[in-house]
Amino acid sequence: MKKVAVIMGSDSDIPVVQKAVDILNQFSVPYEVHIYSAHRTPTETKKFSQNARSNNFGVIIAAAGMAAHLAGAIAADTTLPVIGVPIESNHLGGIDALLSTVQMPPGIPVATVAIDGAVNAALLSIQILSLNDENMAKKLEEFRKQNHKKILEKNYSIENRFNNKNSDHASK
Amino acid sequence: MKKVAVIMGSDSDIPVVQKAVDILNQFSVPYEVHIYSAHRTPTETKKFSQNARSNNFGVIIAAAGMAAHLAGAIAADTTLPVIGVPIESNHLGGIDALLSTVQMPPGIPVATVAIDGAVNAALLSIQILSLNDENMAKKLEEFRKQNHKKILEKNYSIENRFNNKNSDHASK
Amino acid sequence: MKKVAVIMGSDSDIPVVQKAVDILNQFSVPYEVHIYSAHRTPTETKKFSQNARSNNFGVIIAAAGMAAHLAGAIAADTTLPVIGVPIESNHLGGIDALLSTVQMPPGIPVATVAIDGAVNAALLSIQILSLNDENMAKKLEEFRKQNHKKILEKNYSIENRFNNKNSDHASK
Amino acid sequence: MKKVAVIMGSDSDIPVVQKAVDILNQFSVPYEVHIYSAHRTPTETKKFSQNARSNNFGVIIAAAGMAAHLAGAIAADTTLPVIGVPIESNHLGGIDALLSTVQMPPGIPVATVAIDGAVNAALLSIQILSLNDENMAKKLEEFRKQNHKKILEKNYSIENRFNNKNSDHASK
Amino acid sequence: MKKVAVIMGSDSDIPVVQKAVDILNQFSVPYEVHIYSAHRTPTETKKFSQNARSNNFGVIIAAAGMAAHLAGAIAADTTLPVIGVPIESNHLGGIDALLSTVQMPPGIPVATVAIDGAVNAALLSIQILSLNDENMAKKLEEFRKQNHKKILEKNYSIENRFNNKNSDHASK
Amino acid sequence: MKKVAVIMGSDSDIPVVQKAVDILNQFSVPYEVHIYSAHRTPTETKKFSQNARSNNFGVIIAAAGMAAHLAGAIAADTTLPVIGVPIESNHLGGIDALLSTVQMPPGIPVATVAIDGAVNAALLSIQILSLNDENMAKKLEEFRKQNHKKILEKNYSIENRFNNKNSDHASK
Amino acid sequence: MKKVAVIMGSDSDIPVVQKAVDILNQFSVPYEVHIYSAHRTPTETKKFSQNARSNNFGVIIAAAGMAAHLAGAIAADTTLPVIGVPIESNHLGGIDALLSTVQMPPGIPVATVAIDGAVNAALLSIQILSLNDENMAKKLEEFRKQNHKKILEKNYSIENRFNNKNSDHASK
Amino acid sequence: MKKVAVIMGSDSDIPVVQKAVDILNQFSVPYEVHIYSAHRTPTETKKFSQNARSNNFGVIIAAAGMAAHLAGAIAADTTLPVIGVPIESNHLGGIDALLSTVQMPPGIPVATVAIDGAVNAALLSIQILSLNDENMAKKLEEFRKQNHKKILEKNYSIENRFNNKNSDHASK
Repeated sequence: MKKVAVIMGSDSDIPVVQKAVDILNQFSVPYEVHIYSAHRTPTETKKFSQNARSNNFGVIIAAAGMAAHLAGAIAADTTLPVIGVPIESNHLGGIDALLSTVQMPPGIPVATVAIDGAVNAALLSIQILSLNDENMAKKLEEFRKQNHKKILEKNYSIENRFNNKNSDHASK
Repeated sequence: MKKVAVIMGSDSDIPVVQKAVDILNQFSVPYEVHIYSAHRTPTETKKFSQNARSNNFGVIIAAAGMAAHLAGAIAADTTLPVIGVPIESNHLGGIDALLSTVQMPPGIPVATVAIDGAVNAALLSIQILSLNDENMAKKLEEFRKQNHKKILEKNYSIENRFNNKNSDHASK
Repeated sequence: MKKVAVIMGSDSDIPVVQKAVDILNQFSVPYEVHIYSAHRTPTETKKFSQNARSNNFGVIIAAAGMAAHLAGAIAADTTLPVIGVPIESNHLGGIDALLSTVQMPPGIPVATVAIDGAVNAALLSIQILSLNDENMAKKLEEFRKQNHKKILEKNYSIENRFNNKNSDHASK
Repeated sequence: MKKVAVIMGSDSDIPVVQKAVDILNQFSVPYEVHIYSAHRTPTETKKFSQNARSNNFGVIIAAAGMAAHLAGAIAADTTLPVIGVPIESNHLGGIDALLSTVQMPPGIPVATVAIDGAVNAALLSIQILSLNDENMAKKLEEFRKQNHKKILEKNYSIENRFNNKNSDHASK
Repeated sequence: MKKVAVIMGSDSDIPVVQKAVDILNQFSVPYEVHIYSAHRTPTETKKFSQNARSNNFGVIIAAAGMAAHLAGAIAADTTLPVIGVPIESNHLGGIDALLSTVQMPPGIPVATVAIDGAVNAALLSIQILSLNDENMAKKLEEFRKQNHKKILEKNYSIENRFNNKNSDHASK
Repeated sequence: MKKVAVIMGSDSDIPVVQKAVDILNQFSVPYEVHIYSAHRTPTETKKFSQNARSNNFGVIIAAAGMAAHLAGAIAADTTLPVIGVPIESNHLGGIDALLSTVQMPPGIPVATVAIDGAVNAALLSIQILSLNDENMAKKLEEFRKQNHKKILEKNYSIENRFNNKNSDHASK
Repeated sequence: MKKVAVIMGSDSDIPVVQKAVDILNQFSVPYEVHIYSAHRTPTETKKFSQNARSNNFGVIIAAAGMAAHLAGAIAADTTLPVIGVPIESNHLGGIDALLSTVQMPPGIPVATVAIDGAVNAALLSIQILSLNDENMAKKLEEFRKQNHKKILEKNYSIENRFNNKNSDHASK
Repeated sequence: MKKVAVIMGSDSDIPVVQKAVDILNQFSVPYEVHIYSAHRTPTETKKFSQNARSNNFGVIIAAAGMAAHLAGAIAADTTLPVIGVPIESNHLGGIDALLSTVQMPPGIPVATVAIDGAVNAALLSIQILSLNDENMAKKLEEFRKQNHKKILEKNYSIENRFNNKNSDHASK
């Protein structure tokens, strides 16, 4: 099975990246985690990107903050799908990283998720890999069902807590 | 080969969506174009989304403006990768559509591209499909090379036009 | 009397939603509280919305954060007035939820209140129900008078605390 | 039947307001149109607002731009539901009017729609009035059905224009 | 001497308003502090504003947050100069209050200072009153000189702490 | 009578500044117009500012765009009230000029009006001068009354054009 | 003398870049113009950047729009000063390019100028080169003086056009 | 060797400025630190700026918050390169200081770095000085190499911690 690469621009991004890793573990997807900086280790970033497809990667997740060039820099050197995770840093709530990641010019796409959206980055990578892996597609369905069930359970709990005794409408 | 679905929320989005279609044609990727509105034809949207995988779609591109819920609504009903294209409408330069598309809560990812970024949406869909289609992967490489060549040619043209006669450095 | 539905997208929204519930209790308006997620329990959300009018609801309050599609998704399946409460999440101060809630395309309105504005959502729902309920209209007038009185009392307290002894102007 | 008041802050807002009037005419809802300025005719605005309920109004639509205080000023003097339409003026794309309209403090709600969203303001007013008018509720259902049909027709047109000959999936 | 009115929309604004009061005390400018809410005590606000000039006020400082209508509402009922202080509330860093205060339409100006800028509001009110009060003009000059001296002293302290021993340039 | 100074940072600002001049002419307020650039003629700007009070100016209006430092630079060298008019330039809708003008640090206030708000800048300057000029105060009242009347006339025109024949409510 | 490199990401940036070239010509500074794309010709961009210092460049100006990575990508491969010019593209007024250019993480600085600020980019490059070129420093002083003179002349023209006949204050 | 001036607008900026000083110390670059306020000590600021070149400064770093005029004010009085560091203050995340610093009009450039980006300001000043100081150029190369090495070491640490045992791809 193809691997997912989880690349971060700095080790300060680990708390966000960890959430992606947890999802990948939960789905038993093979992955690798690396720190490559578009600006401080550009040569390693380039080499990794150019070889990613032949090194059996299927999707690359790239997480970075501020003027977040990492996802775009990787995407420039591979035709694998690259998922960008904008990381919030100290200022501006992450809008700088979001715009730097998503506003890519025509030719080099980056699949951008929400600010600090590492969970969805991992799920998106699995959805991509599931196109040719029926087992993974089933796991995704199961995951959705579990989430669905959790929300229903929370709903029942909320209904019991809040709703008027004389209300007989329920979310069935 | 799996198909790409290109869904728009309104026929006013055709000028943007056309750019995605052109790319898909250029790569000879099978696709379908539909108008489904998350708010005005929610049942059709839901039905399409739930059946997309079994109907042999591999990727769904969803383009919408304003409080752009289309990509998220589709993503809620399929585990196929969904690519969101935020469309600029009359106000706010498209930032409303961008945030409405990209800021998805954990569990339901949308792979967001730039505002009006239909070219990249199509390229991203092909990159995803290329994971199991070596021919498509080669076409993508070729497309990059052509783009690379076009930029080099533009560069030469610029260099001839602008640079000092006595400059012997060039972009070789 | 028609009921108010208070729907939240996640149980993390309870602290905000509670403020709406408190107001509804204060006015003795019948209500129900539910968790329905536009993305994680879309079927339940749809079913609730389609049946809301026949289930004797008059107004639906929908609170959600990030790419807040909940209010719009509900509004797409009912012609009852839907009030959207954008919830601030970790980033961007809630502007993402505000734009995702308020910037609805023509055809499907959402009555949007301030970020985390659950008190006003509840008051708005009561104002709507008061159109055919003179008792409720009187309660609203009384509520306004009480608020008016509270501000006046705070004003007197402030005037006593701050104003110059020799000032004989007062807010009478 | 209760009337809808359509108030604008300036006659430069007529092009936007006209869209609300067209919808109200289409639904045969009784209405009045007035220019009241929160800042230039505050007394008239106040008088209108205080008497609106007894003058048989059911909903007030208030459209204004820039530091749009009109909806809030009206809402302060009535317990009728007030719908605010932020108008884009020359600068900032209407975000100033949106924030000035929607960010009302607790106690005085304004039901805010999209920037220049006069169509939805009118529809929302009709949805509110429909709570006690089954005929109007049916008209709203019919309106939604017509919109639904229009989108379907546009979809069929798009499908004919764009989709591959050999595609046998369709939006049925 | 004419008085300065310091009006706040809510007693939660006291910490900001206190900074204006401290400056007014420091300059021995007569003032009054009141809570008037544009939305919750509009009648009192109006009455105060209409009588402010005849009640010997010269300048009105109005501090409010969110959709901050207070300064504009007061300005609509007086031709005295009104200074608006946008107050930051829980969300959006105060940009909502800033735009709601400063973006006044032609005809009714509000002299807006920085978010939470109560010190400058008080100084501006004194600068206005100084036009016909030479003593106050001198106090302002003296205040500036003191501030100037404080900065110089801080500069000397910084220079001693940071600068290279062998540097003989100094800020003399 | 004290004069109003109208200072612009560039002659491209004339169309905006002209609106202030028209108001000043209408009120027969003595004024002077100058181009002083905080960055390109800082010495002249400084000299003008330092001498403005003794040169019989009462208020200074300063209009500038982009990183609009002009109003702040003038305010640093005078204790006269300085009114800042942020000018929209090609990008960002004027928000750069607004923040650069209004977000002054404590000690040096700038009375900021709306983006391109030259009319209000002139009116504010007259309101300030009116504190010691009863004739000017009366003119301001008259100006307000004329505006009030104009709005009423526009309202009547609108009512005639839009309102239902059978409506007997009017804005009297 | 060291050369200035003017790099643009796309030939659509020529109109902005031309303004920088005009300044460089005016100062007789040697320069070269190239198109290098951080994403489409990354290898050429890297090669140029790594060799720029040894190829006798002193400053690099990099102009790009959207998720403008060009300046940062160049800066990662050289220790020459790199000046970034954010280019406005179709959406968002250039704020995406500004944040993508200026918000560089610690270690790799980009000297950012205003959106479309090519004139200042060229002037800044000359100011940098002037540190070791007294002739260039004198030219800069002369350029400033000419600008100063132009503003003064415009001021005289404005004064003649606008100011009251009886005003004897002037900007001398 | 030419000196770097590090100017701050207020002693509250010391924590940010200290990071620049640390870098300058690390590179043994001669520097001076001063507090000059564009608004509160404009004369000292002007005198410093006008004499900076003749006082053997090569680069000026100016750090300020809010309506940050400091860098622009200094740049107006010198043709030395001026680096602006926008400082975040209590509100708006520093976007006010960023726009006030970077959006300089044509003629007077400010080389702007990221919000609170004092490290990069210092590095940029050294890069500028390195144009005529080969020793400093070598130190910069060495600094980059050290940073490069640190990232590689962090990468190895991350790889050991995260990556699958059976993965034999590594960042070599």
